[in-house]
Amino acid sequence: MFLLTPALVAVVCILIVWVFKNADRSLETKKEEAQARPWVDEDLRDSTDLLQEEEDVDEWQESEESVEHVPFSHTRYPELEMKMRSQEFYELLNKRRSVRFISSEQVPMEVIANVIKAAGTAPSGAHTEPWTFVVVKDPDVKHKIREIIEEEEEINYKRRMGDRWVTDLKKLRTNWIKEYLDTAPVLILIFKQVHGFAANGKKKVHYYNEISVSISCGILLAALQNAGLVTVTTTPLNCGSRLRLLLGRPSHEKLLMLLPVGYPSKEATVPDLKRKALDQIMVTI
Amino acid sequence: MFLLTPALVAVVCILIVWVFKNADRSLETKKEEAQARPWVDEDLRDSTDLLQEEEDVDEWQESEESVEHVPFSHTRYPELEMKMRSQEFYELLNKRRSVRFISSEQVPMEVIANVIKAAGTAPSGAHTEPWTFVVVKDPDVKHKIREIIEEEEEINYKRRMGDRWVTDLKKLRTNWIKEYLDTAPVLILIFKQVHGFAANGKKKVHYYNEISVSISCGILLAALQNAGLVTVTTTPLNCGSRLRLLLGRPSHEKLLMLLPVGYPSKEATVPDLKRKALDQIMVTI
Repeated sequence: MFLLTPALVAVVCILIVWVFKNADRSLETKKEEAQARPWVDEDLRDSTDLLQEEEDVDEWQESEESVEHVPFSHTRYPELEMKMRSQEFYELLNKRRSVRFISSEQVPMEVIANVIKAAGTAPSGAHTEPWTFVVVKDPDVKHKIREIIEEEEEINYKRRMGDRWVTDLKKLRTNWIKEYLDTAPVLILIFKQVHGFAANGKKKVHYYNEISVSISCGILLAALQNAGLVTVTTTPLNCGSRLRLLLGRPSHEKLLMLLPVGYPSKEATVPDLKRKALDQIMVTI
Repeated sequence: MFLLTPALVAVVCILIVWVFKNADRSLETKKEEAQARPWVDEDLRDSTDLLQEEEDVDEWQESEESVEHVPFSHTRYPELEMKMRSQEFYELLNKRRSVRFISSEQVPMEVIANVIKAAGTAPSGAHTEPWTFVVVKDPDVKHKIREIIEEEEEINYKRRMGDRWVTDLKKLRTNWIKEYLDTAPVLILIFKQVHGFAANGKKKVHYYNEISVSISCGILLAALQNAGLVTVTTTPLNCGSRLRLLLGRPSHEKLLMLLPVGYPSKEATVPDLKRKALDQIMVTI
């Protein structure tokens, strides 16, 4: 009878509800975390973003240090030449297509070095230059990369995706077989450094590292097109950590993109797609 | 006495704890949401990312539709020419600097159109082309943009940032005065479309929209440099919504970057900075 006093019942009930709600909540919190940025590699979810909050800058200052300013030297073209140059640049880039059929023919490494040097001229938040370009030529390493990606892709396609995905998949004419990872003479894996290290060993914030590295990849794509090489922009899902470990990159570097690079194979095809017209992407005020 | 039966006490206690825990939780959830991606504009935090989870693709398919494949036509250069072209492209881009001192001299609009057309050739997840380039020439609108940005910047600098920020600020030689927003003849505001609309009016996922638009901006920066124009990459903080409303853009478009574009002013200076050497950014395997 003592056990059923109102007070004791109250305490027991409070405890039970408390425990249940906490369990429930921790489950949901995990779910939220998992969904927070699903489009990026899972091991990107570290504390870096939080660190940045108090330190975000709106201008991409070229340095965090007080550095001397020097006169800016500029090359100005006559107006007619500006128009011609900009027209030709557009026409060159407009021929770029994502090509999935890449020949095994070797490409000059001097050209690869030059396109990566070009990519390295991109602006970056606080001039942190938070990029690492891993150029893989070794056939065994390329094949291991292919195995890792195809393994994860097959799991993605078969288990993680629903029926809707399978339908979309047919339309997309794709599957988890990535032959170009073996055939392309060069794979460029682009890592973003989510933070750096200050002189005292402390973490140094890399402002806007993902945007900076993506800008750098835009320049890389332009440089490849300019040199007459082809590629396809890929963002391997769920295998960032495995590829990072395979390539011996440190944990503050996260895979952002993988570009297989080479000449197109003789029978290369591309989907017959159009780009939006200027008036669909530009508004003038 | 009836009121104090053990059963009733139990029910009341369960209710009280339930209500308290829920209140507590909703507060924390809001906090988590607010911190989830602090480096992006606050109104970016919509449901788009969640939608993407089940649909992420690793290859940037050119379309979601089943489209015909056509032979890919390629321009191949002799090896020596590839080397020269890639070297010259690097040298051209290596002269690019972020320039904050922009002349008020008008620039040819044909060139602006061409550089945006070039940016529009960027690859995008599932060929969604999720970008809008708003070109602002109107002096009044430019001035309103300046007012909005400086107002938010001043709040950022004075209130949101701590002492550490003020110290960094001195080093950065910056403040919340953005004269270039008035003087530059053209401001290009780049919006990412976080989703689109399918034929039936439903939301259509825009895979990797931020990365896609950033790649597009990389190409835009290269195109501007190629044309002999200067800019500085800026990401205005906390004013994405106000600028979006000012420019009449729909709510599924979010401001990613703002580029003031023009010729450098005669007395333009830049910080005397170096870029990382190739062996600091490239690893070969």
